Amino acid sequence: MPGQAQGALASPPTTSINDPALALAGIAVSVKDLFDVAGQVTTAGSTVLAGTARARADAVAVARLRTAGAVLVGRTNMVEFAFSGVGINPHYGTPVNPADTSTERIPGGSSSGAAVSVATGAALVGLGSDTGGSIRIPAALCGIVGFKSTARLVPAAGTVPLSTSLDTVCAVTRSVRDAVTVHEILSARRVQLAGKPLSSCRIAVARTLMQDGLDSTVAHAFEHSLRVLRQSGARIEEIALEGLGELPAINASGGLSAAESYAWHRKLIAGHEAQYDPRVALRILRGARMSAADYIDLLAARQNWMTRMEARLSHFDAVLSPTVPIVAPPIASVLDHDDEFFRINALLLRNTSVVNMLDGCAISVPCQTPDQLPVGLMLWHAALHDDTVLDLALQVETALSPSL
Amino acid sequence: MPGQAQGALASPPTTSINDPALALAGIAVSVKDLFDVAGQVTTAGSTVLAGTARARADAVAVARLRTAGAVLVGRTNMVEFAFSGVGINPHYGTPVNPADTSTERIPGGSSSGAAVSVATGAALVGLGSDTGGSIRIPAALCGIVGFKSTARLVPAAGTVPLSTSLDTVCAVTRSVRDAVTVHEILSARRVQLAGKPLSSCRIAVARTLMQDGLDSTVAHAFEHSLRVLRQSGARIEEIALEGLGELPAINASGGLSAAESYAWHRKLIAGHEAQYDPRVALRILRGARMSAADYIDLLAARQNWMTRMEARLSHFDAVLSPTVPIVAPPIASVLDHDDEFFRINALLLRNTSVVNMLDGCAISVPCQTPDQLPVGLMLWHAALHDDTVLDLALQVETALSPSL
Repeated sequence: MPGQAQGALASPPTTSINDPALALAGIAVSVKDLFDVAGQVTTAGSTVLAGTARARADAVAVARLRTAGAVLVGRTNMVEFAFSGVGINPHYGTPVNPADTSTERIPGGSSSGAAVSVATGAALVGLGSDTGGSIRIPAALCGIVGFKSTARLVPAAGTVPLSTSLDTVCAVTRSVRDAVTVHEILSARRVQLAGKPLSSCRIAVARTLMQDGLDSTVAHAFEHSLRVLRQSGARIEEIALEGLGELPAINASGGLSAAESYAWHRKLIAGHEAQYDPRVALRILRGARMSAADYIDLLAARQNWMTRMEARLSHFDAVLSPTVPIVAPPIASVLDHDDEFFRINALLLRNTSVVNMLDGCAISVPCQTPDQLPVGLMLWHAALHDDTVLDLALQVETALSPSL
Repeated sequence: MPGQAQGALASPPTTSINDPALALAGIAVSVKDLFDVAGQVTTAGSTVLAGTARARADAVAVARLRTAGAVLVGRTNMVEFAFSGVGINPHYGTPVNPADTSTERIPGGSSSGAAVSVATGAALVGLGSDTGGSIRIPAALCGIVGFKSTARLVPAAGTVPLSTSLDTVCAVTRSVRDAVTVHEILSARRVQLAGKPLSSCRIAVARTLMQDGLDSTVAHAFEHSLRVLRQSGARIEEIALEGLGELPAINASGGLSAAESYAWHRKLIAGHEAQYDPRVALRILRGARMSAADYIDLLAARQNWMTRMEARLSHFDAVLSPTVPIVAPPIASVLDHDDEFFRINALLLRNTSVVNMLDGCAISVPCQTPDQLPVGLMLWHAALHDDTVLDLALQVETALSPSL
């Protein structure tokens, strides 16, 4: 089962970004299909963009990986236009989750192929994006590491946007150590790792929303993880965090993704709706009903909520939650069943999307107990707490690794 | 005629913001009616808010002025909800421009009373706001100084918003020196005055839009100012600045003020439209027709335009333009004539509103020739060039003062 703690990349965490040529020299990196690669067509998992012009330049993130020596081994499949957490693509097929050889299970999405490429070893790094959980959900379901940085730290230039307010360029890796290295390259900055011991950390566990409806594998893995971390000396406090319960009302008018994706797609979808995955088209077209005033109110409500959440979390090093409340369901259970698809999609995105609304950062680290399907443990915080979260994740990964 | 070059405030430009109690000790300051003052009702020039609760706390700007020792001498009249540049208020009357004793002329707006309070000497500082020119237009028409800083430098908390993307808290003063002092208090930071001589400055004059339709007084004052500044050694280059011609298309879907003011007013205006100035209601209600996608496209188009404009202006210390293309027309010419009102309003806002769209900074300095009605010379630049613009304005004010 994947998820080893040691860094798979050549570079130690002391890699200097002043010498990026060394960090990923010869390392196999896959690229989600929504990034421009010079000379190739960016389809974002769609057929509607298949006939468009080839990109004239690499996306900034791709260029930074290349400069660091990465070998681009290929483009990865994804949910059309990144618009779900399940991982199904009706045009190009659905990548099968490699964690279970007996049943074809969903990989999670939208960075489905990115996670599968790393979980199978086809690549050591999978470049992807995360708008509501698109890196962390497939990382959790496939048993690898997915780090969503604070969005503003990595330029999105050269990508097909889903939601410009929420999109984050980031990656899946095999370890937290690798996540640090890749984030340093993508953000062109040094991560400050304080090496703070778990026994000095104050960690919150949110009672509201985040622990609702866990399946037994996730519930067991999450409880086990908290026990191990407490044994390592971490101060873990369960807090209500009532703010999480406000999100449905804040998003009642449609949400940022609907409005912002419709703004990008409206001309394209007006002429080519039949070429879209109907489940994706349905969600994009919801944005057509939103007024400017609704959108402005949503931005203001989000800002107000963020301010209160940040104040509430300011005394903690991080919050711990299950990344997703369930293990990967079989592909067959959702492929042709819309109700079940939308129920599962909402469940997969529920916990992760909180961090995007917070404009925050989060990492999913494997935490399943032996011989179980992969489960992700999410460490998260508000904007620009990236280095604290990564530092803590290194300790958490080490503490949990004997059980993997 | 107002507009003297020496600082009217007690404090020299070396005033330390670490010792703000000294800077405005005993100085008479007026407060535009859209700022909260603890214990008073904020009506924003309307009657519809006249029955609302008294403010429990001062707006941040008001609190900062008080802490610096300012004596608040009163609330100033304004255009209802700050929604025009003319200065007419049907509820509370229109402050008369003190620059002409023979004809009742408009003061300019929306900070109409703020400018009149300073031009008459009733106050030395008039706290106001500028969303499309609301500080600079009345400053120009009344013959005083109006500095609109980069918006983000001064908190807007405790004000009635017009357009959250464009609103700037700022002030009218009698001199550039005073503008520096007041801006330091409002922004809680030190302005760095390099004292760069005019002979080292590279200044642009925009050919597109900004010089269209000048009346003879403005045209003469502007040409005279350029001549004086060239004689002082300034390198002044006329550039096309074609980007200015793009603004009508960028704003075609309604503009930021319409969308954002409608978001704030929609519940209030739905129940109380008859209490609004019909000319204001008309413009607010335009925002009801804008979709979220239109608004998102507008934000993106603005960002793209700003990036190109900033690059174009990066080699200049500032741009010079007439603040407004005309001198103050008689109140009677616009009071009961909607077509003329909207024509004049568009003309007054045309040059100043460019700077708000740019998220930039600008100062209007008196530049009329002797025995003429007031004319403003606007020095402007992109965001966060405030200190350069203020530094240059000090030199410009000195160079022009013999002619006032």
